[in-house]
Amino acid sequence: MLTIKSRTHDYMVESFESLKAAFCGIDRARAYYLIDNAVACHYRSVITDYTEASRTVLVEATEENKSLENLAPVFIELLKRGLKRDGVLVVIGGGVLQDIGCFIASVLSRGLRWELIPTTLLAQADSCIGSKSSINIGAYKNQIGTFYPPHRVLLTPEVLTTLPPDEIRSGLGEVIKLQLLKSQSDFDELMADLSRLDQFNQAAILTKWIARSMAVKLPYIETDEYDRGVRNLLNYGHTFGHAYESATHYSIPHGIAVILGMLTATFLSARLQLVPERHYLELKQKLSPWHQPYGAALYSADRSVIFQAIKHDKKNIGEVVNCILTRGPGAMEKMCVDFVGQLQPAVNQFIDKELNVCISNNALTITPAI
Amino acid sequence: MLTIKSRTHDYMVESFESLKAAFCGIDRARAYYLIDNAVACHYRSVITDYTEASRTVLVEATEENKSLENLAPVFIELLKRGLKRDGVLVVIGGGVLQDIGCFIASVLSRGLRWELIPTTLLAQADSCIGSKSSINIGAYKNQIGTFYPPHRVLLTPEVLTTLPPDEIRSGLGEVIKLQLLKSQSDFDELMADLSRLDQFNQAAILTKWIARSMAVKLPYIETDEYDRGVRNLLNYGHTFGHAYESATHYSIPHGIAVILGMLTATFLSARLQLVPERHYLELKQKLSPWHQPYGAALYSADRSVIFQAIKHDKKNIGEVVNCILTRGPGAMEKMCVDFVGQLQPAVNQFIDKELNVCISNNALTITPAI
Repeated sequence: MLTIKSRTHDYMVESFESLKAAFCGIDRARAYYLIDNAVACHYRSVITDYTEASRTVLVEATEENKSLENLAPVFIELLKRGLKRDGVLVVIGGGVLQDIGCFIASVLSRGLRWELIPTTLLAQADSCIGSKSSINIGAYKNQIGTFYPPHRVLLTPEVLTTLPPDEIRSGLGEVIKLQLLKSQSDFDELMADLSRLDQFNQAAILTKWIARSMAVKLPYIETDEYDRGVRNLLNYGHTFGHAYESATHYSIPHGIAVILGMLTATFLSARLQLVPERHYLELKQKLSPWHQPYGAALYSADRSVIFQAIKHDKKNIGEVVNCILTRGPGAMEKMCVDFVGQLQPAVNQFIDKELNVCISNNALTITPAI
Repeated sequence: MLTIKSRTHDYMVESFESLKAAFCGIDRARAYYLIDNAVACHYRSVITDYTEASRTVLVEATEENKSLENLAPVFIELLKRGLKRDGVLVVIGGGVLQDIGCFIASVLSRGLRWELIPTTLLAQADSCIGSKSSINIGAYKNQIGTFYPPHRVLLTPEVLTTLPPDEIRSGLGEVIKLQLLKSQSDFDELMADLSRLDQFNQAAILTKWIARSMAVKLPYIETDEYDRGVRNLLNYGHTFGHAYESATHYSIPHGIAVILGMLTATFLSARLQLVPERHYLELKQKLSPWHQPYGAALYSADRSVIFQAIKHDKKNIGEVVNCILTRGPGAMEKMCVDFVGQLQPAVNQFIDKELNVCISNNALTITPAI
């Protein structure tokens, strides 16, 4: 059990052997449920046994549903079912459900109690702690949001067993990022574990690295919950990653886009002589299995859309772009980069030259679903 | 100048001689404007001089526009105009604009800097401090909201001079409530001042009681910003008032509904022998000029809608209703009241018997606009 400090309310991360065991700790008399439709199908029997259908709203976990416009009917369905300020909103799903649930819980009755059962590796290892929600509006991605952590996070490895390989790799993107933020030796230990990942040891290895990921993230979110300083470093790989997702119409899973984004940031760091080129080359070789074959999608994306997205990233102000660059593992730094002179040529070269090399080096360890 | 502590950020209330003087302190390079359409018309010249049209969004201050569904286009217009996390949202208007502006500022980029120029007496004396926003969704009123105070509140008596009499009386409803929460002598002093209110001394008297109102409200909102304990007392008159507004389709201005609500709560308190009947009779007589002739609207409202609204008030849980009752000025108390046995007969008697008396006692000091 882990307790996390927050400006709003402290909260706990608890681990359970199974989904059933997680449900047993929920105050059923007060609970209303917001569940990812796909998760509800996969775990129909246990969900039917442990939740009330009359207090449940199912949502398709799509980028479109994570918008202010599409949230209104979800609010209304929950209110119709009787959710009031003394209720508890239990959210079951991955990142999209977490965003929707967090936003709803933070503004309904000006803040309801909510509990989260994250069902993807990315949500378990990374997004379930840190309080953030991100909601789209119109053509604007993630511009609306709140800081409002769940009151309890309920982890169970059971739900990871049914994830497709790409979902695992997407989660590993953030796991890798966090260990790179920690140190070379933590990163090396992670990569060694991942190189021997198979269906028999997967649960044990993932459980270990979920805990290790949280341990890295914890001081950042406790020290700087509102993301005004040191927490920015958690965006390593994200300025580029978000642009790659957007330019490929979200066909690259988030964590895999972050891997491609970290490689870009490291390539740029090497060009700016912040880090030796060998560090970039090592990363490129080691991360290759974890983003293949999405480099191809990035290679064929409209370059102008990528640059537009980087420029309009909400973290950027004016003609200079804020990037998290690296001086090596454990030494990331927020820096201003000249958009035209430094960033654009590096991104172009990365996509034109570096991805081609990756694509020809066809060393997949997990077969992607696409 | 008054500084107010908040869990989110401390903020300041500053006073200015004129709207022009208030504008001078705004960081124009970062400012975007959300302005009540009617206020923009009234003060067209100064607003044209001190704001950029290209960064301004005008909103009609209607109950319909204060809904999640109708907020989406306002968000999009502000984003289109370039509002980002380093921008400042300057909100100019009364309660509706404050609700809309507060909600937008609290969730755009997970919290923007915002500054408020309240333009009604109610907003200046009461709602501008305390952090709350309330937004409707579907048929559900005020179910969505946030706690997010403005970073600065800029008061100027200039904008009060163009308010219609009902707007003044509506504001006075909350002013009266706050002095009743304080003490008999403060209430008496207020009523004495109000009895000699005319067009020549109005600005001076209102300015005095705006400051005195804030002084009463301050400890409640600083001690219990999230409204989980003592701040509930500020809801004196509101459980009934909200129901009266809703059952009359918002034809009774909010503060006037609060006056009628306080009378109901005091009548119920007297029936429950919490307070001597003479206190209720004194209040009935003294407050009569300030709610006339809206008693008539209440008298003809659908009684079942009133009771439905009281039952569904978000502060109530189950068959027992939480009310702020009174043991006299300065002695309000949150109590559980039996809905069928205690509340319903008191409300029925109040509307059937007490309002009739008020209606025949036609002692208006300010002519209402309707």
